[in-house]
Amino acid sequence: MALIEPRTLKGFRDYLPAAMVPREHLVDTARRVYKSYGFLPIDTPALEYEEILTGKGGEESDKQLYRFEDSGGRKVALRFDLTVPLARFVAQHSHELGLPFKRYHVATVWRGENTQRGRYREFMQCDFDTIGSESIACDVEAALVIHDLLRAIGFDDFTIHVNNRRLLTGLLERLGLEGRSAPVLRALDKLAKIGPDKVAEEMSASAGVTPSQAAEILKLAAVSGSNDQMLSQLEPLVATSERGRDGLAKLGTLLGAARAAGVPESRIQLDVSIARGLDYYTGTVFETTLGALPGIGSVCSGGRYDDLASLYTKERLPGIGASLGLDRLLAAMEELKLLPEKPAVAPVFLAYFSESRLADYFRLASRLRAHGIGVEFYPDAKKLGNQLKYADRRGFRFALVVGDDEWNSGTAQWKDLASGATKALPIHGPDGDVGAELLAALRT
Amino acid sequence: MALIEPRTLKGFRDYLPAAMVPREHLVDTARRVYKSYGFLPIDTPALEYEEILTGKGGEESDKQLYRFEDSGGRKVALRFDLTVPLARFVAQHSHELGLPFKRYHVATVWRGENTQRGRYREFMQCDFDTIGSESIACDVEAALVIHDLLRAIGFDDFTIHVNNRRLLTGLLERLGLEGRSAPVLRALDKLAKIGPDKVAEEMSASAGVTPSQAAEILKLAAVSGSNDQMLSQLEPLVATSERGRDGLAKLGTLLGAARAAGVPESRIQLDVSIARGLDYYTGTVFETTLGALPGIGSVCSGGRYDDLASLYTKERLPGIGASLGLDRLLAAMEELKLLPEKPAVAPVFLAYFSESRLADYFRLASRLRAHGIGVEFYPDAKKLGNQLKYADRRGFRFALVVGDDEWNSGTAQWKDLASGATKALPIHGPDGDVGAELLAALRT
Repeated sequence: MALIEPRTLKGFRDYLPAAMVPREHLVDTARRVYKSYGFLPIDTPALEYEEILTGKGGEESDKQLYRFEDSGGRKVALRFDLTVPLARFVAQHSHELGLPFKRYHVATVWRGENTQRGRYREFMQCDFDTIGSESIACDVEAALVIHDLLRAIGFDDFTIHVNNRRLLTGLLERLGLEGRSAPVLRALDKLAKIGPDKVAEEMSASAGVTPSQAAEILKLAAVSGSNDQMLSQLEPLVATSERGRDGLAKLGTLLGAARAAGVPESRIQLDVSIARGLDYYTGTVFETTLGALPGIGSVCSGGRYDDLASLYTKERLPGIGASLGLDRLLAAMEELKLLPEKPAVAPVFLAYFSESRLADYFRLASRLRAHGIGVEFYPDAKKLGNQLKYADRRGFRFALVVGDDEWNSGTAQWKDLASGATKALPIHGPDGDVGAELLAALRT
Repeated sequence: MALIEPRTLKGFRDYLPAAMVPREHLVDTARRVYKSYGFLPIDTPALEYEEILTGKGGEESDKQLYRFEDSGGRKVALRFDLTVPLARFVAQHSHELGLPFKRYHVATVWRGENTQRGRYREFMQCDFDTIGSESIACDVEAALVIHDLLRAIGFDDFTIHVNNRRLLTGLLERLGLEGRSAPVLRALDKLAKIGPDKVAEEMSASAGVTPSQAAEILKLAAVSGSNDQMLSQLEPLVATSERGRDGLAKLGTLLGAARAAGVPESRIQLDVSIARGLDYYTGTVFETTLGALPGIGSVCSGGRYDDLASLYTKERLPGIGASLGLDRLLAAMEELKLLPEKPAVAPVFLAYFSESRLADYFRLASRLRAHGIGVEFYPDAKKLGNQLKYADRRGFRFALVVGDDEWNSGTAQWKDLASGATKALPIHGPDGDVGAELLAALRT
């Protein structure tokens, strides 16, 4: 029979252990931090009715949707993000859930992306959201979660950029430019590249902004200094707009509470250039950059929205949330050499020689596991060199070598695989359990 | 605009926190046990080329396959198990992986099952396998992993039923009935229901088994007593078959090593009635039943196979593995009241009253988290009754109530939500950190 070529679809990846171990560790860390704030896990189906998913992420998302008819003739599609399923979920179960509802969701999503841009068609998202409260406390908490996440993953040098969309919408309101934030933001986004004069020209052309209006808007974009200095500079710009004052007050509260909770100013900065898309977010917005790798973009982004699920329910559901960029973070950690090179998950490698002693090896391994020490037992009684080559490739910390002589003398050869150091240590203590010296050596 | 009805597809489930918290905990436990034996995580795409998946699980699997054409015209399908993707994966990456290769894989699979039988169309599998070694050490280890898994999940009373397919194939060989194990097994499977005479009749009709041959086969099925007694009874039945003797020796080795590793005889039993399907498994086979709920069937099953990936590679890849039945275990745990009723993930609920003190609440919560104590902070300064109702529904262990008076006096109200006990405790210690008594009360 002809062999079938073993291959994966374009844009889809196998995760070998070397990639999967840090991935699982990162997800575990995120879940631990989410839980420490009371966020609860949920999951939703990979497949939804097509009508639930279409028209939610714009034309681009619809084009990228994996959709088909199932064998029962239903039009179905694979989820392309975790936000649309969350909206459907909360609308469907709101009575059971109770509000506020704090959830995290770590799951796979699918998009038929153009793979030439280095994009994948299957990837994991890692979101948290608080639904059903407009309190600034939720916004503060979202910032603290992002901070604790990055710290728990192992980063020291990062910045959470915070803005509030109400600053600009308030200023535009005051200037009589309501509803023109989209073209204004598009122009402002080019400030660093084309300079203030060209930005003013573009705002004039695209949004009918006069030179004096443009000057005010550019003042907003030009605030600088410490967080407190920026807050002071922004005050006169939004003073006559209720919305703007509210946005500014919320930023002040957020930055103050974050400071009280121990976040240094270097890690959280007011940044009026952050907008996070044009329509969805309505208040606080976040982006997070790594000091060592600013070029990779934001590794954790999100913000506050007015109404999550208006397509599925009349209940108004405001909320705030953010999404941890797992793939981007893992790429950054690899570049910064923060990932282990070899994927061992158990620290100890137990070599195998003496087939008549099989039960003794398993007794020893079980006792070590009972002491919380993971042990991999090599299954074939091959030459020590072959076994140690395997152990080295897998990245174990220690090898235990016990052959007939060692079983007879009651002494194991302990080997530190990184340094090459070896010691002969008694296998058992006086109580018949694993010897204390051996345990200590396997725990260093 | 008309609302879209929020609904899930038939056979698909949303997991609310109450279902998701124990699910995550179970998966974490399984992963911890797998890792303690050196099994490494992998993942594969949900979507594969259709040709990789069709014809691998029999006609039934093919019919249940979710398959479609993607927008690039490729015929694709959603994986229906984790074994076929593992075979494809190992064939594709064998040079990178090295053998033996020990992997675990926890992931979602999809089958267009008939939902009237209470089956789901999307569910999670939780498999572990050792590929590339024929050593009995792998079989022993698989039994120990199953044992440690069930213990770690919280079960004491369970039985791992072990058999070796070579016992029967060896006996049939000796009787000149090679290649007839499928009809013989089908008949034997009815032994408890129809009795030995009818089984002999059926074997005669379906496999041409003579009465004296049937008597020998029925002797095999009738062994009973302790593991050692059964091993002795089996010895003469397979004595003249090399294959049968090998199967028996392997069972003896496995049971001996499991005993040495601390598995009591009540938890591992030779059971010649276990077959696990007719074709795939060739050596050791496992099923695991719960003492309190024998009727739900096996919660962890698997066995040894001769060649994993013969459809994709000429390299012969023997292996052994098993699959933990997550859904079945969770149903059992629910029935046995082993699951928490409420899904709190952080132990402490911090009520919120005094809006001017927002930063103080966040400072306190952060310090508690720095001590490893998870805290959920209620975001809206509502009436205490409402807040405590929320806390009760979520199942927190403790509430901390700190209003203006408490902030001024420096004393928090601590409340045990289960017993209703309350205490007034200093918020801060002399060093400005959380007070020692308060910390102790939140850790009980």
